[in-house]
Amino acid sequence: MPRNVSRSKKALAKPIGILGGGQLARMIALKAHEMGLPVRILSESSDDPAAQVASGWVKGSLNERKTLKQFLNSCSLVTFESEFLDASLLSDIARETGTPVYPRPHDMAAMQDRLTQKSLLLKHKLPSANFFPVKSYAEAQKALTKLGGRAVFKKRRFGYDGYGTFVVHSPSALAKIEAEFGSNIYGFIAEQFVPFRREIAVMVGRSQKGQTIRLPFVETYQENSRCLWVKGPLRETSALKTLAHKLELFLKATGYVGIMGIELFDTGRGLLINELAPRVHNSGHYSLNGLCVDQFSLHLKAILGQDLGKPVLTAKGFAMLNLLGHSSRKPSWDLPSDIHLHWYGKHDNRPGRKMGHINALATTPDEALALVKKRLRNFDV
Amino acid sequence: MPRNVSRSKKALAKPIGILGGGQLARMIALKAHEMGLPVRILSESSDDPAAQVASGWVKGSLNERKTLKQFLNSCSLVTFESEFLDASLLSDIARETGTPVYPRPHDMAAMQDRLTQKSLLLKHKLPSANFFPVKSYAEAQKALTKLGGRAVFKKRRFGYDGYGTFVVHSPSALAKIEAEFGSNIYGFIAEQFVPFRREIAVMVGRSQKGQTIRLPFVETYQENSRCLWVKGPLRETSALKTLAHKLELFLKATGYVGIMGIELFDTGRGLLINELAPRVHNSGHYSLNGLCVDQFSLHLKAILGQDLGKPVLTAKGFAMLNLLGHSSRKPSWDLPSDIHLHWYGKHDNRPGRKMGHINALATTPDEALALVKKRLRNFDV
Repeated sequence: MPRNVSRSKKALAKPIGILGGGQLARMIALKAHEMGLPVRILSESSDDPAAQVASGWVKGSLNERKTLKQFLNSCSLVTFESEFLDASLLSDIARETGTPVYPRPHDMAAMQDRLTQKSLLLKHKLPSANFFPVKSYAEAQKALTKLGGRAVFKKRRFGYDGYGTFVVHSPSALAKIEAEFGSNIYGFIAEQFVPFRREIAVMVGRSQKGQTIRLPFVETYQENSRCLWVKGPLRETSALKTLAHKLELFLKATGYVGIMGIELFDTGRGLLINELAPRVHNSGHYSLNGLCVDQFSLHLKAILGQDLGKPVLTAKGFAMLNLLGHSSRKPSWDLPSDIHLHWYGKHDNRPGRKMGHINALATTPDEALALVKKRLRNFDV
Repeated sequence: MPRNVSRSKKALAKPIGILGGGQLARMIALKAHEMGLPVRILSESSDDPAAQVASGWVKGSLNERKTLKQFLNSCSLVTFESEFLDASLLSDIARETGTPVYPRPHDMAAMQDRLTQKSLLLKHKLPSANFFPVKSYAEAQKALTKLGGRAVFKKRRFGYDGYGTFVVHSPSALAKIEAEFGSNIYGFIAEQFVPFRREIAVMVGRSQKGQTIRLPFVETYQENSRCLWVKGPLRETSALKTLAHKLELFLKATGYVGIMGIELFDTGRGLLINELAPRVHNSGHYSLNGLCVDQFSLHLKAILGQDLGKPVLTAKGFAMLNLLGHSSRKPSWDLPSDIHLHWYGKHDNRPGRKMGHINALATTPDEALALVKKRLRNFDV
């Protein structure tokens, strides 16, 4: 079977490394398998969701120099599922080994700290709530006053799903968390409290070769600061289009490589960016069934410099519902055929833990949402 | 988060076992991972396509009593990717261990032998070409005469992709393969030579609970007796609908459990069944992107007794192209975004070997086919 052979093609000599063994790493690994890309996982336990689905699993700590160096040496390029790694160590080892890490460690560094992330947003004229850095209780009191008596205090580092976030509506409420301000070595930011009409999210990405992509805007719903569901696509208003354009400029200006998750507040009078995450994101899980290409494959294509294409919808409406643990019993389910289950293989079921998610397609976002909500009863998580 | 708990739900205590480590087992394993079903693979080498994508891989022979017994004991239920196993051994061990094997070994036995398969078709009034069993050269000569001087001689067992099949148009051509008839312990069947307009395939299935499903009819194209491409869906003529109905009756009458691949000849004047395979099938690979649910997930749902639902198309046209090796070099590719790559991770590239496949979607089957053919140049297999 003769054919034209493009000279630019090459096979990967070494696997793609993934730092971390959680559900995001698992879903990246599964899509890598589908594309036939060899993957290697670095994580602490062979029970980890990603460790279960790859023969190339390596046991080890993600922030330990020797382990990381060995791991990077064994990979052609490396990515990660969490931005809370030691970015400067990772940057050093990437330089020493010559193995690229995407997204680049300095982008991870900028986004893993809420203060530098806010500075990044300011620098690139991306809208977000007013804020002040806070290092002490005295500064916290001052910030609360300046922000009109209502503020959200967020730990600069290691906050997620509401952990490390305190909404404060009065000086007395602030006094109750006074001890926090002395105990956190990285400090806080105090952000203006934003009453929002709804929360929105969008996945964007840029490939190694400079091509950018944006997935549809979606509405997200959080319960107890944890994502419960996502529905979409949203009708693209001019405000959303303008923001999308700014995000594209941002990706280009920073030279970011990989997929990025963006969380927004729709205040009813405008859009404010709440958070950037330099990785695949829970709010993009709908793409596994709602688009012709999913965020995990896109992330792999982006870091490999492959064509990202256009994200075509597979239905007029889609929805994603997180399956959160509500007991410590072994979860079980009856799988109905009108939803798509993505289960993470976690051995311990714990209340609030993300055990899996379900996706549904329908003729409108609301119909798809109704379907996943209805199907929740088929799961005893 | 309180919800109704259905009492019929249960989690799998032990993994689903897959006998075999090739691409079919790999794709079943990947879909099992997606659904969070624990899987265990039994195969000869850790390099096998399926062994690469599962932590639960066991090294061993598929036809060795002790290995099989241990493997079945460690699984909740077992399936396979090839019908060419020792069906009676498997049946014995399933009974001894109490671990169900789906499709059932006696269905495997009936279909792994071309003579018993033909008898099965006759018994269930499914149309297929006239045939005679052949055990010697003398019987082969007689059969050739009875079949009008043109016949296809097929080894009763272990034939695939044209191996073990001889098309004979004259007594002198038969004489050239005379030695074959003495050397094959299982014998042959002599089948009427069928000049066909095109080849057609369809996947059908039946769940443990008795629910049946049929995927769209597709056209398949073979080159050198090996599947090169598939396109679909075919327009459903009354002849196809009638056949579909007969196939459903066949599944119900036999109580078959799992997905089954069916290859047909469209002679222009009617449909004849060429072959049944009690497993997922190359002609169903399009379903990974062309349907809302793929044959691998359906097979798992069928053997677990889950709801099979309805196979909704994701586009008006789809096509699948096998990526066949054409040299022994390491394969490589540039991955374009308008096709879906499914690569099997095989280490040795050999001419004609199935290394992976690509799927495309379009507004017609022919457009999708044109797209995968065009994209072949992106692969240096």
